[in-house]
Amino acid sequence: MEYSSYNDYLADIRRRSVLPQGFHASTTVLAFSPRERDAVEPMEMNLSLILLDEPSSAFAGTFTSNAFPGAPVVHSREVLAGPRVRGIVANNKIANVCAPEGLESARRVLARVADSAGGEAEEYFVASTGIIGWQLPTNEMISSVEALVGGLQDDTILNAAMGIMTTDSYPKVRTAEVGDGRIVGIAKGAGMIEPNMATMLCFLLTDCRIDKPAAQEALSECVDRTFNRITVDGDQSTSDMVLLLSSNQVAGVEAGEFEAGLSAVCGDLAADIVRNGEGVGHVMRVRVHGGATESAAAGAARAIANSPLVKTAVFGNDPNVGRLINALGDYAGVAGDPFDPERVTVSLGGIDVFSRGVFDLDSSKERRLSDYLLECGFPTSGKRFPLHERFVEIAVDLGLGNGSCEVLGGDLSYDYIKENADYRT
Amino acid sequence: MEYSSYNDYLADIRRRSVLPQGFHASTTVLAFSPRERDAVEPMEMNLSLILLDEPSSAFAGTFTSNAFPGAPVVHSREVLAGPRVRGIVANNKIANVCAPEGLESARRVLARVADSAGGEAEEYFVASTGIIGWQLPTNEMISSVEALVGGLQDDTILNAAMGIMTTDSYPKVRTAEVGDGRIVGIAKGAGMIEPNMATMLCFLLTDCRIDKPAAQEALSECVDRTFNRITVDGDQSTSDMVLLLSSNQVAGVEAGEFEAGLSAVCGDLAADIVRNGEGVGHVMRVRVHGGATESAAAGAARAIANSPLVKTAVFGNDPNVGRLINALGDYAGVAGDPFDPERVTVSLGGIDVFSRGVFDLDSSKERRLSDYLLECGFPTSGKRFPLHERFVEIAVDLGLGNGSCEVLGGDLSYDYIKENADYRT
Repeated sequence: MEYSSYNDYLADIRRRSVLPQGFHASTTVLAFSPRERDAVEPMEMNLSLILLDEPSSAFAGTFTSNAFPGAPVVHSREVLAGPRVRGIVANNKIANVCAPEGLESARRVLARVADSAGGEAEEYFVASTGIIGWQLPTNEMISSVEALVGGLQDDTILNAAMGIMTTDSYPKVRTAEVGDGRIVGIAKGAGMIEPNMATMLCFLLTDCRIDKPAAQEALSECVDRTFNRITVDGDQSTSDMVLLLSSNQVAGVEAGEFEAGLSAVCGDLAADIVRNGEGVGHVMRVRVHGGATESAAAGAARAIANSPLVKTAVFGNDPNVGRLINALGDYAGVAGDPFDPERVTVSLGGIDVFSRGVFDLDSSKERRLSDYLLECGFPTSGKRFPLHERFVEIAVDLGLGNGSCEVLGGDLSYDYIKENADYRT
Repeated sequence: MEYSSYNDYLADIRRRSVLPQGFHASTTVLAFSPRERDAVEPMEMNLSLILLDEPSSAFAGTFTSNAFPGAPVVHSREVLAGPRVRGIVANNKIANVCAPEGLESARRVLARVADSAGGEAEEYFVASTGIIGWQLPTNEMISSVEALVGGLQDDTILNAAMGIMTTDSYPKVRTAEVGDGRIVGIAKGAGMIEPNMATMLCFLLTDCRIDKPAAQEALSECVDRTFNRITVDGDQSTSDMVLLLSSNQVAGVEAGEFEAGLSAVCGDLAADIVRNGEGVGHVMRVRVHGGATESAAAGAARAIANSPLVKTAVFGNDPNVGRLINALGDYAGVAGDPFDPERVTVSLGGIDVFSRGVFDLDSSKERRLSDYLLECGFPTSGKRFPLHERFVEIAVDLGLGNGSCEVLGGDLSYDYIKENADYRT
């Protein structure tokens, strides 16, 4: 897709954002003064609720492996282990990580939601994204629950997609039709692209009937091939979370079809997250084939996508393919995977640049490659919507076996530094 | 040390740069037109020779583990395995990596040097740093050997220290007095900070008597604790090389004293390399104690020093300690090392910021931390000499065991992007 204005984009995702059967959603805004700061202007927080019309036993989740998990991750892992779920409560602005009484605060808010919308606190997932170390404005959140529940509607997920945004510059909604049912997903964040406003969150809603073990298996598999294969700056946050909830209202959807749909939604949202990463001016798609093992291919792909030198070259539209070789060789040398420099071939944008241990480059080819990089880019400043969905295609054949892997990554730009170096105000 | 001008700095390192007994050195300049470019202005290359007055059996080396080693690494590994060495031949501008007939070209140059200065080609180490993929200007290099050998002098290593510079903005020379002998070291580069002009090179010369096994043991140990513990962008180049040569002229130096001297020279040069990394505005010293193992401590220290989010925060003088916790938690979660969030304590500039799972921060402490970061920095533009040798001190106690590690790293600045994204001209 290409979009010529933010309104174009919004109109398109509003069409996609219709809730599956059996769900309601609401988002409200509250004001609070953070207790960690002397005398600042009150801040605004979005509080969102996604509610199942009936409690459901069909749900799944995957969480960050960060060794400092936030309170929402700790609570939501317990919900995942329970028998049923009612919904998801999500807030932006404060991540509720390493803050005093984090778990108690979250549970007080959930208890109030349960009082008002039904069920128990332990039947609600909770997801928070924002500043690490600060305490939730528990009282203000509790006071806004009445308005939150009063605002529930069964039309669109768009307000929630906007409500969970932090440094994202546009909401992300992707859908798939599967049989007579649907999968609707929203996401925010770009890994730890802005850790003050941390966290990758993704909520996937469906009306397709599925049982809990099948839901978890499908979700884990999809996350592994999509959200776990994107990288903006190589960090995972203390709060990353992907949740899948089903209202179980549409029977007869084949497992394979459901998984294909889920995979498409996750893949599209993962690409959206990289595309909207802070300061990202190009999205690289690194495809490695021919690895002795899948993990060797994955390691090589990730090494290229994470190399600051590759990322800065791509930002500068500089086809500096020496850096691809260097990143690859650095990884292979350290990892000790089987590796034969003579068998490696590398292409950029479909143009061969390296084989049999030497580069295949001349001035005119370099100009073509530079033009190609330019076409794949978008301006890194002032972008409020995704201009296009093109990737910088980097393909590597290791020439050894059947291991393959695809990783999406952002470039590294002045805007990344700007977003991340400015003193918090 | 603090310096107020480039001339001050040069005067200081000129004093240090006296060659140990038993060595001569020479550097010459040659012009060449790269065959990989149509019609460009001729480029200038520095060719340096460090010559032992007598062949020596006392030498050692460590090399990159990059799986695409350059031709100089391939040749020099063979020299290291041989019985004796005469000297080192080094050039800048072209790295001789993944270029056609790389090894043959290097050996043709070395054969000419051996003809003129004595011995055989396989008795000379060779080190090249510069653009990857381009061929050496072999004929021009061979033609300049007469001038190179004619210019040998036994006074100073400074010309060679300047001759191996690429994107370095100042030469690096460090020395130690050990007994009646000396160790003099020069170095260039900052890892893969600029891979067009790639490579970390370090040549260590001594007159202290030592045998080959002891030399290798001392060097490997020192490199492991110094050059292998610095990071600018996490990449190691195709050509990294550290060489140690002894003229064996001064007897009676104790092994312990020699190793302490070698360690000091390597540590100082390693810090110089980070300090002079492209766009580096702060040098971080990350010290991790209390690891369950040494490798757990090393992994944690490296994770913090390599985190783009920590690096950009330090660049911006932003005491964003949430990013330290995040980087630490990300590493520990993925590595699966033993880890207890409740036992972790973190300080910045000696000021405690995190313990028992929560942050210990307020507005006035954050201002003090920001002032501290400001004092540790230097301007990233226009710096032609090291203004000072201060570090941003980040200390982590994992509270579990005796594993410890110290890593030096640079911040991540606009200038880094600028240096690395500009199209090669």
